[in-house]
Amino acid sequence: MAWFPPVRRVATALPLLCLLMAPATLSTAAEGPYTPQFDKDDKLTFPAGYRDWVFLTSGLDMSYGPAMRMGHSMFDNVFVNREAYQAFKETGTWPDKTTFVLEVRGAADKGSINKNGHFQTPEVMGLEVHVKDMARFHDDGWAFYAFDANELTPKPAEQLPVEQSCYSCHQSHGAVDTTFVQFYPTLKPIAAAKKTFSASYLAEKP
Amino acid sequence: MAWFPPVRRVATALPLLCLLMAPATLSTAAEGPYTPQFDKDDKLTFPAGYRDWVFLTSGLDMSYGPAMRMGHSMFDNVFVNREAYQAFKETGTWPDKTTFVLEVRGAADKGSINKNGHFQTPEVMGLEVHVKDMARFHDDGWAFYAFDANELTPKPAEQLPVEQSCYSCHQSHGAVDTTFVQFYPTLKPIAAAKKTFSASYLAEKP
Repeated sequence: MAWFPPVRRVATALPLLCLLMAPATLSTAAEGPYTPQFDKDDKLTFPAGYRDWVFLTSGLDMSYGPAMRMGHSMFDNVFVNREAYQAFKETGTWPDKTTFVLEVRGAADKGSINKNGHFQTPEVMGLEVHVKDMARFHDDGWAFYAFDANELTPKPAEQLPVEQSCYSCHQSHGAVDTTFVQFYPTLKPIAAAKKTFSASYLAEKP
Repeated sequence: MAWFPPVRRVATALPLLCLLMAPATLSTAAEGPYTPQFDKDDKLTFPAGYRDWVFLTSGLDMSYGPAMRMGHSMFDNVFVNREAYQAFKETGTWPDKTTFVLEVRGAADKGSINKNGHFQTPEVMGLEVHVKDMARFHDDGWAFYAFDANELTPKPAEQLPVEQSCYSCHQSHGAVDTTFVQFYPTLKPIAAAKKTFSASYLAEKP
């Protein structure tokens, strides 16, 4: 999707048109510092302003299983609250109240002038949150939540049980403080410079 | 790249490790409102803080040509300065001084526990900028720039000649004010609601 004739690329692209519509409320969130909000039942309020946060990375159809064909493609976009991102740049690790949002979006391949590759559609297919709250989560300080992407304004969600594999996988393979910093291209060099990689990550790093 | 067992997805992913290193300076930019800066030779200063801006979309290997195989994959990440994004959410169009950065990043498919799909690597393969300055650019108010992604701190760049196809393509196919809002999933619904789509886009929209 280059904007002009390629300097270092073979193909350029300026594709067009998406077929599906996303909830408009996802793009009209409040500004200001973010702190995770929990209701009286300990459910996490959906961080509706996450599209104003800092983008960390995007993947297409990533999986750690064998070649399972899904019949369709999806992008994953990862965001983190701005305060946590600034702190990471200074320290190489995550402060308390750090909150990640993983947004799963539809991927299309053909659309108007786009002839190859994949582009993101407005269809939101999943919304997952990873939040650090040392006073609330007494294992490693982190918890996972899944929100209903079909809702215009996703309802508060319960913490996913700590027995789910997300917890053990992040603890075993996350490069920094149970998070996949090894996949966040602008932060990985900072963690390397600050020497904040986890022992488990350094042990399995080739 | 789901963080936990799939709710609405078949495959989950928590991949690991990137092979290439990006310039660290790209991730340590200044905060605050952004205004494009031009030097005495009318070259645009590279907006080094763009990773703190608002993420609009990401594509993989997009192109508008026939099936040209590049032999490798690349992601395109598109960012816009925060002030412009806020203005767009209110008005459905872009204010003066709006600045986009298109960042081209390496894509890898195999890496540690990732077995399928593509993830972004720290390798920055291209940096392209689209800037609106009504007093400076007297055609449609916009200009394009290409920066050297190999430089730790990219040097100021000259405006690309208006004869290049990026200008005519954006003018012909951009959904809003010569920009590809049809591909920015959170902004397309706003443009639809505010009725700010261009006549050319509405004419070619299926």
